[in-house]
Amino acid sequence: MIKVGIVGVSGYSGFTALELLLRHPNVRVTYVSANNTRGKISDIWPQLKNRTKLYCDQFDVTKAAGQCDVALLAVPHTIAMQITPKLLKAGVKVIDLSGDYRLGSVATYKKWYKATHTDPRNLRKAVYGLPELYKEEIKKASLVANPGCYPTAALLGLAPLVGTHCELIESIIIDAKSGVTGAGRKASVAFSHGEVSENFKAYKVLNHQHVPEIERYLAKLCTHSKAINFVPHLLPVNRGILETIYVKLSSRVRLNRCHKLYTNFFKVEPFVRVFGLEEQVELKNVVKTNFCDISLALNDQKNLLVITVAIDNLVKGAAGQAIQNMNLMCGFSESEGLL
Amino acid sequence: MIKVGIVGVSGYSGFTALELLLRHPNVRVTYVSANNTRGKISDIWPQLKNRTKLYCDQFDVTKAAGQCDVALLAVPHTIAMQITPKLLKAGVKVIDLSGDYRLGSVATYKKWYKATHTDPRNLRKAVYGLPELYKEEIKKASLVANPGCYPTAALLGLAPLVGTHCELIESIIIDAKSGVTGAGRKASVAFSHGEVSENFKAYKVLNHQHVPEIERYLAKLCTHSKAINFVPHLLPVNRGILETIYVKLSSRVRLNRCHKLYTNFFKVEPFVRVFGLEEQVELKNVVKTNFCDISLALNDQKNLLVITVAIDNLVKGAAGQAIQNMNLMCGFSESEGLL
Amino acid sequence: MIKVGIVGVSGYSGFTALELLLRHPNVRVTYVSANNTRGKISDIWPQLKNRTKLYCDQFDVTKAAGQCDVALLAVPHTIAMQITPKLLKAGVKVIDLSGDYRLGSVATYKKWYKATHTDPRNLRKAVYGLPELYKEEIKKASLVANPGCYPTAALLGLAPLVGTHCELIESIIIDAKSGVTGAGRKASVAFSHGEVSENFKAYKVLNHQHVPEIERYLAKLCTHSKAINFVPHLLPVNRGILETIYVKLSSRVRLNRCHKLYTNFFKVEPFVRVFGLEEQVELKNVVKTNFCDISLALNDQKNLLVITVAIDNLVKGAAGQAIQNMNLMCGFSESEGLL
Amino acid sequence: MIKVGIVGVSGYSGFTALELLLRHPNVRVTYVSANNTRGKISDIWPQLKNRTKLYCDQFDVTKAAGQCDVALLAVPHTIAMQITPKLLKAGVKVIDLSGDYRLGSVATYKKWYKATHTDPRNLRKAVYGLPELYKEEIKKASLVANPGCYPTAALLGLAPLVGTHCELIESIIIDAKSGVTGAGRKASVAFSHGEVSENFKAYKVLNHQHVPEIERYLAKLCTHSKAINFVPHLLPVNRGILETIYVKLSSRVRLNRCHKLYTNFFKVEPFVRVFGLEEQVELKNVVKTNFCDISLALNDQKNLLVITVAIDNLVKGAAGQAIQNMNLMCGFSESEGLL
Repeated sequence: MIKVGIVGVSGYSGFTALELLLRHPNVRVTYVSANNTRGKISDIWPQLKNRTKLYCDQFDVTKAAGQCDVALLAVPHTIAMQITPKLLKAGVKVIDLSGDYRLGSVATYKKWYKATHTDPRNLRKAVYGLPELYKEEIKKASLVANPGCYPTAALLGLAPLVGTHCELIESIIIDAKSGVTGAGRKASVAFSHGEVSENFKAYKVLNHQHVPEIERYLAKLCTHSKAINFVPHLLPVNRGILETIYVKLSSRVRLNRCHKLYTNFFKVEPFVRVFGLEEQVELKNVVKTNFCDISLALNDQKNLLVITVAIDNLVKGAAGQAIQNMNLMCGFSESEGLL
Repeated sequence: MIKVGIVGVSGYSGFTALELLLRHPNVRVTYVSANNTRGKISDIWPQLKNRTKLYCDQFDVTKAAGQCDVALLAVPHTIAMQITPKLLKAGVKVIDLSGDYRLGSVATYKKWYKATHTDPRNLRKAVYGLPELYKEEIKKASLVANPGCYPTAALLGLAPLVGTHCELIESIIIDAKSGVTGAGRKASVAFSHGEVSENFKAYKVLNHQHVPEIERYLAKLCTHSKAINFVPHLLPVNRGILETIYVKLSSRVRLNRCHKLYTNFFKVEPFVRVFGLEEQVELKNVVKTNFCDISLALNDQKNLLVITVAIDNLVKGAAGQAIQNMNLMCGFSESEGLL
Repeated sequence: MIKVGIVGVSGYSGFTALELLLRHPNVRVTYVSANNTRGKISDIWPQLKNRTKLYCDQFDVTKAAGQCDVALLAVPHTIAMQITPKLLKAGVKVIDLSGDYRLGSVATYKKWYKATHTDPRNLRKAVYGLPELYKEEIKKASLVANPGCYPTAALLGLAPLVGTHCELIESIIIDAKSGVTGAGRKASVAFSHGEVSENFKAYKVLNHQHVPEIERYLAKLCTHSKAINFVPHLLPVNRGILETIYVKLSSRVRLNRCHKLYTNFFKVEPFVRVFGLEEQVELKNVVKTNFCDISLALNDQKNLLVITVAIDNLVKGAAGQAIQNMNLMCGFSESEGLL
Repeated sequence: MIKVGIVGVSGYSGFTALELLLRHPNVRVTYVSANNTRGKISDIWPQLKNRTKLYCDQFDVTKAAGQCDVALLAVPHTIAMQITPKLLKAGVKVIDLSGDYRLGSVATYKKWYKATHTDPRNLRKAVYGLPELYKEEIKKASLVANPGCYPTAALLGLAPLVGTHCELIESIIIDAKSGVTGAGRKASVAFSHGEVSENFKAYKVLNHQHVPEIERYLAKLCTHSKAINFVPHLLPVNRGILETIYVKLSSRVRLNRCHKLYTNFFKVEPFVRVFGLEEQVELKNVVKTNFCDISLALNDQKNLLVITVAIDNLVKGAAGQAIQNMNLMCGFSESEGLL
């Protein structure tokens, strides 16, 4: 039984982490905090009435360090890098759900997050928490950078192909669609029901801060650097990401071989499901689960592979994956508390 | 051709008024303003690109008075009562969509809107803009208090019965359900898609500021004062109000007679449709129209009449009704620009 | 570890039961069937890929009896009464989610379900599976009639009051709102997205088949027979029921006393949460849970108590409650597998 | 004043045509029919109560021919080609909203619609009703093949570029998203609210029947044949199509020049709005209008142009465009009744 803290429990990711951890057989949630909200968790999240007596207070590093073995940081970027060094120093393992420790480089961070990184030492040490690619590193890590929601889907959808067909790939286009909780829980006209429901639009076209994250981890799979084209869209749903990924290849591939490549790659993974060639992934199959579903199709006239990937942005794209990482870091079964 | 101004064009009611007036054959919209937004209407409301070259500026009473014959005030309460006296003095007819001129009494206003009324003179003179009840008064009015969305549905649903069966009515319960645009266009977690979609709840139970408005105009139909029980709910839709009204009667009535009473009452009204006894009103039939639909059912064991009423809160419940009033005030056909 | 079968696994209730039971520590699902669908569960419900290898076949009573200790019947009414006697005879405990065994009387069944009851013997013996009222009877039962979704909310919302204030109650009005899965999973224009989304309407006004079920179990709490007025509405959400219940009392009550009455009544119940007087229940707090949330408000001028009740129609209103009953029938902790 | 008939008025396109035509100043709707529904229009579509007394009967060619100058066919494919020759022979102008007359070739029709074309003579004569490309031909046509919803958006989004940069285009990928009314009004589990709401998926990946239609009309703009990659998705909204089109160019282009190309191309078109370079199109701006909105973005490192296009599938993608065609065929102003 380990003691876990959640920093930033008033947001959707923090809530999802708490909801999942309350069911986890090896975890006791001992500490929760939020910046602008304090009070009983059951008042902040009435969903959890009768399920917890936790009290949420403003973040206090001494308290957090004293009460937790592991801390999940569900806070905005720039906040995580202020907290992390202190927690690590106190011997607390940290899983950061923000973008602060994902990009490896102070310069790239500055370019995309418009802020100076104040913890470059840990930035270099952080392990990228995508268990399907970095399982062994995660097991030994004390600081895990939990992947972004879009990159989780993109990298799982591309890893088997990019790792083996690197030199054949001419271009990658990712047409991504996300539900509104991807933007967090905030007061904003743009995310009000009256603006989102019955609507759909692209945003940050070719210019989203998840682009360098995807490119960085694709580059590790492949000697040729792999630039991508990424266009995100806002779906009128609460949860879920579906990405339609178009990969142009320079020579002929066979769909059956690609499919076998994917099923083999993920054979032992508890949370990736490669669908049959006649099936298409759908959001509803992954919502409220930690699964990542993948379908494949091919235009063999044009050597264009179409990969569709679906995840729940709050689970596999955030809190669920954080718990999967925690399981690995703490020696539990990878899927404990997640099925 | 008259010149019309819209004050508060950046909100949903103001927008709806503008959208409708751009199609009105006898109207030229000559003035639009908003408090916190300025710029081309086609930038504020891209829906209206290619349809208007209007420019929205901060409200200026001299400009407004100089450029309009009629002004529609789609502003928050307390703002309308600051603007109205000046416009009236300048000879501009005013239709106020806020609650400022509906309650007739300074004391009731203070109790429900938590503000001191600063224009009691016009408060007494204002005509309540429910054309089905006050058509002749509206024709002669220079200041019309456009009804609230909930009261519009409640009063149309109750008027035929209350006006004729006053002494038989033992109690009135109004279970009301409204789409999110009823709350206006604002940055708020409570109205974000993530909180509203797939959700439903009651709010301001027995304590909504539309209660005194409904009771005031019921009282005018009936010697016995008619207190009501009113429970509003938030529907996960953008537009529309449906009210289920339960009227307990002290003696037996026949459903056919009630139905005839309603069809007769509204026979000449262009915008009220009394449905057949086998039919139920639905939001989708009134959304984006100025219609008010009404169905009747009876529990004849218990003398309980169930009246269901549907309107679009932004059209018959706000901007459409304002234009219906404008048509009457200006001598146009009542339904001009609204069908 | 008990062996459980689900008859009717291709519908929403059957699916929900399966999804919940796959997590239940004391249950192995050994048998699933459906009438018009056969194949691997992971093809019928791709949500469950990687989670089960069950195969769904047409119902076969011999197989079912041989493979199960308990059977959950998630089938249409009239089907359950054909299957039940055979399963009971073979020693299988039965929890019927249809309306077949709820009404106690062959005549009432005929009137509301338009069919002749073919199993009157078991109809008389069946225990009504509302654990908050009939816990001890359920523990000993071999046939449980699982309550309807609307009656579950109505009876939990009314039981504390009706059981203690019977003679003071003058009238009960239940304004009920349900998500679309309440109607089952079926091909129908009326339930298509294009008709339901952004829509809202009442249906079966004063004439729903759950009326006699509610009245029958209220009558058991109270010497005066309690007729109700029940108006259901269709909400544009997938899951959830919210009922706003208006109880007119003949004399003064105090809200605090009512609230205490409710909190005491449900003090030991794991799945009923009585909200504080300043809070209102919302669908989102109960969706995907087995909780029933209750709020109270009072118009003390008119002695009108307003009770709002929220459940998930597929969990507490169907499959979750069935598992709660199964837990009781099998000697497990009442909330096992449900939190 | 012309007399217009609508064949297939019980579907969404037929209804939308009727709703629009009831407001058209030069049109009297004199004939409506449907195959499986008969009765008063106000019973079939309660939205239209008080607006029309039309009666819908089964289709009768003699009646239709006697009562109409123009017929809009909003019927399934294969039905239109049975009706059209008879109407044309009787001197009625025909606008067919089905796919029957769009593909020009009996063989292509057979391949994609799995049916033998029975009216090859008119198939050759039909004019493709995309007014922005074929205005002059439409003015003289007696048979217009109204474009499919996806092709309308795709062709308007691509025409300016393909017509001028034909030889530079290396590949075209169309990632298309459509609301549910695109599939028509039908009883189907797959389109029920419970399956569509909060869901999202791709379907008919690389294999939709609109592919040959898009390719055929692109080919007319360009000497090099332009094969496309087309992946449609089902959006959880009722109305609207948004297509994100990726065009890979073999050499450098400048975004400003592309933008100017588009604004010039559509300068005189009343229904195409090219957005500024900082703006993105959204469904909500086109829903319930006949507008087609277009935004442009460029990855100038990779010479990838991203064109986003939005229309209402029932208006510009079906009934609205049909009326735009009717206006041209009958000598009315192109936008009459559509603004």
